[in-house]
Amino acid sequence: MTTIADKVRNGVDTQQMYATLDAIKAQPELGRFEFRARNHWIAGAHNRTTIQGFYGAGQEDESRAEPFVIDAGEPVILLGANTGPNPVEYLLHALAACLTISLVYVAAARGVRLTEVESSLEGQMDARGAFGLSDEVRNGFEHVRAAFRLKGDAPPEKLREVAARAQQRSAVYEMVTNGVPVTMEVEVA
Amino acid sequence: MTTIADKVRNGVDTQQMYATLDAIKAQPELGRFEFRARNHWIAGAHNRTTIQGFYGAGQEDESRAEPFVIDAGEPVILLGANTGPNPVEYLLHALAACLTISLVYVAAARGVRLTEVESSLEGQMDARGAFGLSDEVRNGFEHVRAAFRLKGDAPPEKLREVAARAQQRSAVYEMVTNGVPVTMEVEVA
Repeated sequence: MTTIADKVRNGVDTQQMYATLDAIKAQPELGRFEFRARNHWIAGAHNRTTIQGFYGAGQEDESRAEPFVIDAGEPVILLGANTGPNPVEYLLHALAACLTISLVYVAAARGVRLTEVESSLEGQMDARGAFGLSDEVRNGFEHVRAAFRLKGDAPPEKLREVAARAQQRSAVYEMVTNGVPVTMEVEVA
Repeated sequence: MTTIADKVRNGVDTQQMYATLDAIKAQPELGRFEFRARNHWIAGAHNRTTIQGFYGAGQEDESRAEPFVIDAGEPVILLGANTGPNPVEYLLHALAACLTISLVYVAAARGVRLTEVESSLEGQMDARGAFGLSDEVRNGFEHVRAAFRLKGDAPPEKLREVAARAQQRSAVYEMVTNGVPVTMEVEVA
């Protein structure tokens, strides 16, 4: 007998997971996704992003009744008014969230029940780059450190395997480490 | 006579901006910053990041009385419950926010008053990478398109110059296009 407890592991419906994987294996074009964000400037460093629809699995997604609205800004020392985390902090958040979701999904797929996933990320930069004061330093982080702490009902070696596989499959980790081509188009009025 | 209107342009205090630039020029170590994010898993794809302190300009920042708390998740089709934007959407947000702040700061420094900055970003991916179904596609976006629309009290050529300089100086744009080394450490218990 299959119980709910067997089907849902780490809060992930593993039957839905296997069904999704089978569907994409059978019809690879279901794997095509397009994600989107719209942003508008408010004042100074304050700006706001709206996120709602995306394309995936062969159709426009309509599961989000309301958009997500996210504010960004800069701290006072970087000429802002703390209206939200700053963009490089959001990058750390995107990385932490992606590695965490990958860990949870990989663990669910491998039959590992997790009880705790915590992480602490740090990125160092020399602001002379972004401020245009030096061409010898880069604009962004020189290095990011992501320290994870995992607890679960599996031996340490098994938890480490799950973490290694999650790192190998995380979309944001892969983008942040390898880079992505970005086209910027500007329309002026 | 210098008026407030001269000092504050696009919501940016240009006197504070020039003072900051002068201070970092005189003492380059003031440009050292470390940004941080802490994340913990809640259930399934749902996880939460807390952002508050950072190091910069020679000291620990204490300007944020309360932490910023940000939730992430996945849509239903990606085995989540829409508890927040997903990590790759947050990456688009970080990129939009950073390019927007760069535009506003560069314009302020160059005496250009902006009246509108809007952007729309899209990233395409083949989810077979992140799902571990194919080693022939990457995990993350193949390409990101960022379409900006600017309005301001300067000729179109000047607005385009501001946009080009902002793209050249944005920290997140630089990281996303070039990549950053990330060290992942895992402690199991």
